[in-house]
Amino acid sequence: MRLLEERIERDGIVREGGVLKVDSFLNHQMDIALFAELGREWARLYADCGVNKILTIEASGIGIACIAAQQFGCPVVFAKKSKTKNIAGDVWTSRVESFTHGKIYDIIVSKDFLGPADRVLIIDDFLANGSALNGLIQLVNDSGATLIGAGIAIEKAFQPGGDLIRGRGIRVESLARIKSMSVEDGIIFC
Amino acid sequence: MRLLEERIERDGIVREGGVLKVDSFLNHQMDIALFAELGREWARLYADCGVNKILTIEASGIGIACIAAQQFGCPVVFAKKSKTKNIAGDVWTSRVESFTHGKIYDIIVSKDFLGPADRVLIIDDFLANGSALNGLIQLVNDSGATLIGAGIAIEKAFQPGGDLIRGRGIRVESLARIKSMSVEDGIIFC
Repeated sequence: MRLLEERIERDGIVREGGVLKVDSFLNHQMDIALFAELGREWARLYADCGVNKILTIEASGIGIACIAAQQFGCPVVFAKKSKTKNIAGDVWTSRVESFTHGKIYDIIVSKDFLGPADRVLIIDDFLANGSALNGLIQLVNDSGATLIGAGIAIEKAFQPGGDLIRGRGIRVESLARIKSMSVEDGIIFC
Repeated sequence: MRLLEERIERDGIVREGGVLKVDSFLNHQMDIALFAELGREWARLYADCGVNKILTIEASGIGIACIAAQQFGCPVVFAKKSKTKNIAGDVWTSRVESFTHGKIYDIIVSKDFLGPADRVLIIDDFLANGSALNGLIQLVNDSGATLIGAGIAIEKAFQPGGDLIRGRGIRVESLARIKSMSVEDGIIFC
C-alpha cells in the first residue's frame, strides 16, 4: 500500500540492529486518519469473507484493530500478555517469545470471547519473526473459531515469520513489506 | 450517559471487593459501535475546546481513545507502562500505583509527542482512586501542554479519585458514574 510505504519513508527511522522506529504515527503516537486507510484496505482485501471478530494483541495492535473493526462492523478482542498464567478464569493461552524485549510470555483470551461461531481476522502492527502472530493463530485454532487471515501493517519480509506462516496456507495481507533496511541505505520495499 | 449505564446494567458483572467486570464490551472484548457513541458524547462535551491531542494509557484505554479521536480529528498518544525507567530516549515520566494489581510502575511518553503546542484531552476506561489519571495529568503538566480535561467511560464515584481531581479545578467528564455497587444490590448510578 503506497500510502503506508510513503509514510514509512517519510517518518520512519532505521536504527542499528534491524530496528524500525515508527512511533510518530503507528505505535506510540497514532495517526488515526492513516489507520482508517489501513482499515479500508483490509476491508477491501477481506471483503465477503464473513469476518465477524477481530483479534489483536496488546498494546500497539489495539488502535489499528479498533479502527479497522469499524469497516467490518464487528467487535475486537485483544489478547493480554501475562507473565503468570491467569487462573482466575477460563482462558485460551499460548506462548510468545519477544525477540525485541528478550522475554517469553503467555498470551491469554477469555473463552467467553473466542469460540466456534467466530470468523476471525487477526490484526497487528508488525510481523517479523512471527512469534506473536503464531501465538494468536494458536488461540484461534484452539478455540474452534475459523481463521480468515491476518492483516499486518508492516512486515519485515527479510525475517522469516511471514513466509513461514503463508507456507502453512494462512492468508497474510501486509500493507507494507520491507525487503531490506539499513542505516546506510534506508528502506527498500518488496 | 444512559446508553452506557444500560449496557453496564445488562452486561456488567459485580464481584466481591468492588470489582466490576465489563470485559465483554469495554476492556477485553470491545464494542466499537458503543465506543463511537462515547466518542460522540465527549466531542459534544468538549466541543470548541480546541483539543488537538488525545492522551491515554495502555492497554485498555487505547481502543476508546482511538475511536474518540476520530471525532476530534487528532492523533492519540498512549503512555507506556514501564517497570524500569526508559533511558533510551527523552521521555516524560510519572509514577502510577495500581491498587487492582498491587503494583507501582512508571508511565512514560516520548517528549517528541507531548509539548507546549498540545491541547490535551485525556481518555481512559476507568476512574477509581485516580492514580492513573493523576499520572497522566502530571505528564501533561510537565510537558508544558494545555490540559483541557478528561473523558472517562466508567467512574467509581464511591472512590475518591474523581472528586479529588475535580477539586483541583480539572474538568472530568465521566459518562457513567457509579454511586455504589455490591453483589447483593447490584449497581446504583449517581
